[in-house]
Amino acid sequence: MDLEELRTFLAHPRHDGWRVPGLEAVRADHMSIAVRLQVGANLLNYGRTLHGGAAATLVDSVGSIAIVSADPAGRFGVSVDLNITWLAPAPEGEWIQVEATVLKTGRNLAFVAVDIRREADHVLVAQGRMTKSLGSPTAAGVVAR
Amino acid sequence: MDLEELRTFLAHPRHDGWRVPGLEAVRADHMSIAVRLQVGANLLNYGRTLHGGAAATLVDSVGSIAIVSADPAGRFGVSVDLNITWLAPAPEGEWIQVEATVLKTGRNLAFVAVDIRREADHVLVAQGRMTKSLGSPTAAGVVAR
Amino acid sequence: MDLEELRTFLAHPRHDGWRVPGLEAVRADHMSIAVRLQVGANLLNYGRTLHGGAAATLVDSVGSIAIVSADPAGRFGVSVDLNITWLAPAPEGEWIQVEATVLKTGRNLAFVAVDIRREADHVLVAQGRMTKSLGSPTAAGVVAR
Amino acid sequence: MDLEELRTFLAHPRHDGWRVPGLEAVRADHMSIAVRLQVGANLLNYGRTLHGGAAATLVDSVGSIAIVSADPAGRFGVSVDLNITWLAPAPEGEWIQVEATVLKTGRNLAFVAVDIRREADHVLVAQGRMTKSLGSPTAAGVVAR
Repeated sequence: MDLEELRTFLAHPRHDGWRVPGLEAVRADHMSIAVRLQVGANLLNYGRTLHGGAAATLVDSVGSIAIVSADPAGRFGVSVDLNITWLAPAPEGEWIQVEATVLKTGRNLAFVAVDIRREADHVLVAQGRMTKSLGSPTAAGVVAR
Repeated sequence: MDLEELRTFLAHPRHDGWRVPGLEAVRADHMSIAVRLQVGANLLNYGRTLHGGAAATLVDSVGSIAIVSADPAGRFGVSVDLNITWLAPAPEGEWIQVEATVLKTGRNLAFVAVDIRREADHVLVAQGRMTKSLGSPTAAGVVAR
Repeated sequence: MDLEELRTFLAHPRHDGWRVPGLEAVRADHMSIAVRLQVGANLLNYGRTLHGGAAATLVDSVGSIAIVSADPAGRFGVSVDLNITWLAPAPEGEWIQVEATVLKTGRNLAFVAVDIRREADHVLVAQGRMTKSLGSPTAAGVVAR
Repeated sequence: MDLEELRTFLAHPRHDGWRVPGLEAVRADHMSIAVRLQVGANLLNYGRTLHGGAAATLVDSVGSIAIVSADPAGRFGVSVDLNITWLAPAPEGEWIQVEATVLKTGRNLAFVAVDIRREADHVLVAQGRMTKSLGSPTAAGVVAR
């Protein structure tokens, strides 16, 4: 997936259910992608900073895009394990960057590490890691949507 | 927090930002609470089952209610670490139960384990654990809202 | 694996490398096993309580025995993800119990939850969870050793 | 902690209990340290590669040295949460490098990320993260031992 493909992918979300809206493409390499978004009112917790669940959803969602992009067969897979550590708040209005780096994509499993940073001062807001089960290869159409 | 207080708490969410809507109170003990919800269209992933990020948000949110309920000082704290393992899908329309059990609430830290099960067949959908930093004691009003 | 088989398994460790010695069989059901051990000088950290790495090794090792026992094909698999939260110290000389419960054993993956408790007061010392990749079915001889 | 101090620290282990022996100092910066070791027979699993519990112990131990080194007060703290993902085997005889990078050291908590790589081909063997509770500041002598 290159930058233009990532832009297209983000502009046409695959589904209408649970997701963090407003992702903008920043960078797309073979094993890593980066997106940015503003911490809007819809992403806040009671303290008016980025909600922990929104951050976890970003690890899952952006990590999954990186994995489907890195896998030669374009498999989206099924999420198995996720961990996240929250290190600093991202207050309402801040822009944050989410960078997902695929650690390994194998025959059955893929692994991705995700950093969320405040754009203004590069402070690490959260760090997560996710493991996905890739199942059997599927049509490349999964990415293209 | 008893069952009636949990009902009141869920009926008056503390914030309007990121959250899983539609939680119904099931049970509230000193160290454990349970809620139920239906997997609506707003909670789905591409495969039309409960999104992993929604499940992670349930671990965070329901776990946090259990922690504030178990802490003598009613501290809500700040989430530090969360992990989740997804074990089985919860398809659209299914009712699920989320049970949060406080493992320990100490001077500075609290720990909660969360199970998400399909109500119909009791199959474990996801299991998570979260650590919160409690900071300094706050007014009991946090719970009462 | 029944209790007698667990005793035999523990009495004949499969390997001579990295392991927590001194495990005694307590209980063995289809999806769960329990062992006990004394916190000896060889398991301590600088504060003379059970070392975090020894606790993590117990999650891995005892969890793996539970998985091989629960899997119909007796597959030992390869560890993929592990998390552990340390909740209370287990001082030198204490007896602890390690209980591993298989959450699910599927076609390719298996999941196990592990609790470590002080035997005297049942206080939870640590809680962990592990995911293993099972690979292809192997000869049942793996368990029998 | 500079490289010479790390060498001294490793040459005089703080305790005789559970630990991975044979660590050699590679690098020591303010927020990061690296050590190397050979995968000896004492570190193996049944498949004669680095045992998952040994890798977890390296995350805990080397991560703890990085934290005590980065904390201005030299606090060693207490381990709270650890996660590890195992990505590739480290066979007997291989040399591996363990690099621990402190993500944040705060008033009460510190966070460290740890990569374990095979020295020959730089393949990532395991990646982990750990959170420690620092407690109250202690004498700087902790580091000096």
